[in-house]
Amino acid sequence: MKLYDGGAPSPRRVRIFIAEKGLDIPKVELDLTAGDNRHPDFLKLNSLGQVPVLELDDRTVISESIAICRYLEETHPDPALFGSDAVERARIEMWNRRMEIEILGTLANVAMHTLPYFKDKGIQVPAFADAQREAAQTKWAWLNDELSDGRAFVAGEVFSIADITGMAASMVAEFVDLKPGEHLHHVRAWEETLRSRHSWSV
Amino acid sequence: MKLYDGGAPSPRRVRIFIAEKGLDIPKVELDLTAGDNRHPDFLKLNSLGQVPVLELDDRTVISESIAICRYLEETHPDPALFGSDAVERARIEMWNRRMEIEILGTLANVAMHTLPYFKDKGIQVPAFADAQREAAQTKWAWLNDELSDGRAFVAGEVFSIADITGMAASMVAEFVDLKPGEHLHHVRAWEETLRSRHSWSV
Repeated sequence: MKLYDGGAPSPRRVRIFIAEKGLDIPKVELDLTAGDNRHPDFLKLNSLGQVPVLELDDRTVISESIAICRYLEETHPDPALFGSDAVERARIEMWNRRMEIEILGTLANVAMHTLPYFKDKGIQVPAFADAQREAAQTKWAWLNDELSDGRAFVAGEVFSIADITGMAASMVAEFVDLKPGEHLHHVRAWEETLRSRHSWSV
Repeated sequence: MKLYDGGAPSPRRVRIFIAEKGLDIPKVELDLTAGDNRHPDFLKLNSLGQVPVLELDDRTVISESIAICRYLEETHPDPALFGSDAVERARIEMWNRRMEIEILGTLANVAMHTLPYFKDKGIQVPAFADAQREAAQTKWAWLNDELSDGRAFVAGEVFSIADITGMAASMVAEFVDLKPGEHLHHVRAWEETLRSRHSWSV
């Protein structure tokens, strides 16, 4: 088994997951700024040219961060990061998607429509970046309301994949200067908890 | 158990899933054009004001279409629509996400940034709609290449949640006039297979 890795929020999400599981998976490091992910050999593994990609020993290829994490969850169940029973798994899936779509997605849109790295990778629409930038603080405020019941983590009292998605969002927020406002105490406290984990620095 | 339902692609995705499982779940029908989903009582169930929502008999609330489908998969395993072993489940998760992000997401962006229904629900950016409209045929062409190996369904030989996401995409494509071009034979044939299923009309 080996992981095709690179310097971007998605691979980092998987690296955090691996660190939280205490696993050690050999890595192939791609230089995304040099275009390693557009090389024909890599496109054979993932036609979308995206990292991360997990290649199993029998050459089975799994792309998409959450698909990789789910495979690792099944093959290394402890600690459970997708939940421990049907209801908890549903709640964590719900929250992981909310974190992806509402928070990480909004921030990633700002990044993709403003950062020089993405300039030649698609059409950047400044008006869309502005709209998403404005939406970001509304989304953080929504999350703050949700966390105001004092729960420790996004999906309840247990750290989960939904918090890992939150960690990726927190990193992107710093990058595009859209951290949650200082008045959003619940989100800020939750972020501090995440940033103090050993897996934050992988 | 009851399902809060409404006339939109996401609830339909869950309705198709329920039909494929052969389940019968009581429904509460919301009129989205009348704003039922913005009513304070509904916002208590889902602060995002989105359908579908599944409410269990103990009042546990699950929102997000795929979280609902996963819960139903665990509680009603046959037929398996998320895969039957760790590798198949990973491949189906990978393909469901590809279908969501690359295909359905692009088409939904066109819908959200052009349709009158969404006019007062966020900021519509015509230049973004144009860019996504242009991207849509590129994405369909990518999918066509992927399906050119002759497999029956998106994630292999077994019908799965990834095809259900494809069915939702196919519906949105029709709505925004972005169906796959006629030369994309593999996508068109796959679409025909899906449209002939009994669950298409739910």
